[in-house]
Amino acid sequence: MNDVGMGSIRTIQYDPFPRIEYEGRVERARRLMKEHAIDAVLATCEHNLRYFIGEPSTTPQQTTRPRFLLILSSGNPVAVVPEGIDQFYKDTTWVKNCRSWPSPNPKDEGVSALAGVLRELLPEDAKIGVELGAESRLGFPAGDFLRAADAIKPRTFVDASDPIFTPLRMVKSPLEVGRIRTVCGLVSDAFEGLATKLRLGMTEREACRQFEFECFSRGVEKTSKIVGVSGRGGYTRPYGVPTDKILSDGDVLFIDAGCLFDFYWSDFDRHFAFGAPDPHTQDAYQVVWDATEAGIAAAKPGIPICDVWSAMSAVLNGSNNRGKATNIGRMGHSMGLWMPELPSVQPDDKTILKPGMIINIEPSTSYPSYFDGLPKLMLHEEVVVVTETGSQLLTSRAPRKMPVVAI
Amino acid sequence: MNDVGMGSIRTIQYDPFPRIEYEGRVERARRLMKEHAIDAVLATCEHNLRYFIGEPSTTPQQTTRPRFLLILSSGNPVAVVPEGIDQFYKDTTWVKNCRSWPSPNPKDEGVSALAGVLRELLPEDAKIGVELGAESRLGFPAGDFLRAADAIKPRTFVDASDPIFTPLRMVKSPLEVGRIRTVCGLVSDAFEGLATKLRLGMTEREACRQFEFECFSRGVEKTSKIVGVSGRGGYTRPYGVPTDKILSDGDVLFIDAGCLFDFYWSDFDRHFAFGAPDPHTQDAYQVVWDATEAGIAAAKPGIPICDVWSAMSAVLNGSNNRGKATNIGRMGHSMGLWMPELPSVQPDDKTILKPGMIINIEPSTSYPSYFDGLPKLMLHEEVVVVTETGSQLLTSRAPRKMPVVAI
Repeated sequence: MNDVGMGSIRTIQYDPFPRIEYEGRVERARRLMKEHAIDAVLATCEHNLRYFIGEPSTTPQQTTRPRFLLILSSGNPVAVVPEGIDQFYKDTTWVKNCRSWPSPNPKDEGVSALAGVLRELLPEDAKIGVELGAESRLGFPAGDFLRAADAIKPRTFVDASDPIFTPLRMVKSPLEVGRIRTVCGLVSDAFEGLATKLRLGMTEREACRQFEFECFSRGVEKTSKIVGVSGRGGYTRPYGVPTDKILSDGDVLFIDAGCLFDFYWSDFDRHFAFGAPDPHTQDAYQVVWDATEAGIAAAKPGIPICDVWSAMSAVLNGSNNRGKATNIGRMGHSMGLWMPELPSVQPDDKTILKPGMIINIEPSTSYPSYFDGLPKLMLHEEVVVVTETGSQLLTSRAPRKMPVVAI
Repeated sequence: MNDVGMGSIRTIQYDPFPRIEYEGRVERARRLMKEHAIDAVLATCEHNLRYFIGEPSTTPQQTTRPRFLLILSSGNPVAVVPEGIDQFYKDTTWVKNCRSWPSPNPKDEGVSALAGVLRELLPEDAKIGVELGAESRLGFPAGDFLRAADAIKPRTFVDASDPIFTPLRMVKSPLEVGRIRTVCGLVSDAFEGLATKLRLGMTEREACRQFEFECFSRGVEKTSKIVGVSGRGGYTRPYGVPTDKILSDGDVLFIDAGCLFDFYWSDFDRHFAFGAPDPHTQDAYQVVWDATEAGIAAAKPGIPICDVWSAMSAVLNGSNNRGKATNIGRMGHSMGLWMPELPSVQPDDKTILKPGMIINIEPSTSYPSYFDGLPKLMLHEEVVVVTETGSQLLTSRAPRKMPVVAI
């Protein structure tokens, strides 16, 4: 990576992943295919295509011109793509075997082309894995999926998300960890920069836009998911677009940032107090900071991810917490080419942690407002990578005390 | 709208849409439901939810916590959403009737909850419309869709995209046109600002990041889809992430920008020559500029959209074009809460233009490079809204001559 100055906008140069990176991913997919008796994998959603070939498009979802990538038991991947995209792929990815159809054609947007290729290349008893399982999305219309399933009979579509895509993408390569480390670092710096720019009287939207600028100017490529919520004596939920609400004395501002660098995500939050925070908020911050510390310490290879949950839960349910552990359903998740990714930091998720896994450590507590006793939320997040011996923080640890915007 | 200065980052305030806007959309959906004998509509994908209730989340796709919105033949919409999202919806949208399930739960991510609600509220012979048709995406896993279809039998899922969502969303309300006008105007200004910032020796990525900054600082919220390609004597395709390629004398830079304001999209491109453009590129620019002019003039209510295609095609195939009309499949499309949206500017799309439709006018030509004779692409775009009497440009018209970056 090289930095290139350009006024206030820093652009971080980086090399594209080498072909061997993608070949390794395909090879590992094949091992899982064999293990699960799946004859071929059909990747259709944008992040699965990106995983295998570094899909070079910038449209978030290719609704008009869907793309299909077929991974057989041997040989290089075969792309079935709209006319024009075939040459684009040949020029910019390692996929050289492309079939195409004239597109856009809403009446037959690749269904016949795809079914033709599957019939040609796969025997009649073939099981073809596609995105059907937990937290998956197909990259083409469900109606077209049903038509394709009919047109390839007696071949069948089976789920490839749970047996292949999810476990495969769960363990990141060193190059992938590098990208996530980069974006986590940039966003950490942006949060620190923001602390010096926040002012009483700004709106939530202004504060969040200033934060996005801090990210962008440092080299972050996209600030795709920005949650900004605030409230006197605390906030009540970790969701929502920032509004034109003015930030006033006593407010706590929570910003949760999902940001991208070379299509890899970071996801973590930070807090800012407008004026000295009230004692309940201070205590909740401290308890959740301690729970985060316990979660970071617990994350290591060989243990089930639910143990990370238990370590945080013990702190949250300990005697020095005025509130209680909240049930927002989990206390963390993975991320990579998508956010969130599985596994989840949940009591019933027994996924064994392995080196290269990315986990966000995300404990939360509910506590009574100092002002009116109504429930408030305190939710922290840090991102770690599991190493051979433990875990390593990819974010700059949140400060022990909530940063205060002078009033 | 109000402008609020904040150093170099402008934040444009705006009022959220009033409830009556959403009620009207539901009412128009019901008319189409009746016409097509569909008993209920189930919206699951993010932009359909946003259309009916102003979905207030910021995650691009809710893969972990899917949401379902049910529109029945009468009464207010019913949301079936993860626990926590129910209160979020009640606090921030006009939906007050929410059912929920404990989430995340990858083993049953709302399928039982959704099927239970459909069985409870709809008779056994009910046809339930969901996103299955052209250019649609489901907002939950296809495997869960199949499970839900099984669990609601004898009720059936049918397509709602082609008969309901697409025609409904095709005609924008004045408030929607206002949002699109805003973002098209901001991005137009950003392109003009960029022209003064480009320098020989910048990379494609630096140029695109400068452009994104120009957008963001003026009030654009997201620069979600940025294509940046360049080449000596012209470019060859309208797709691709910008690279670290250095912009040199003779290069033409093409930037195609999909940007957002309050979740509404703009989509159009602009060109920049590094040094005086070669004569072939100049001529191609002029022909496509003229074709765009013809497309804008042709767009008016009451005509089929294919007539807009014909008007542009006539110019591109005219005697003053060294190249030929390209076949990138269409010469425009609509946009709104998603980009692209149907209809397409294609010879076989007979959709009748109506006031409130947004069309991007997107002619292109292929021409031989002045330097080596190899084919180059020239593709222009402007965005118009169809009015009662004709159409109105929402973008600032591209300059007649390609802006030149001094060398």
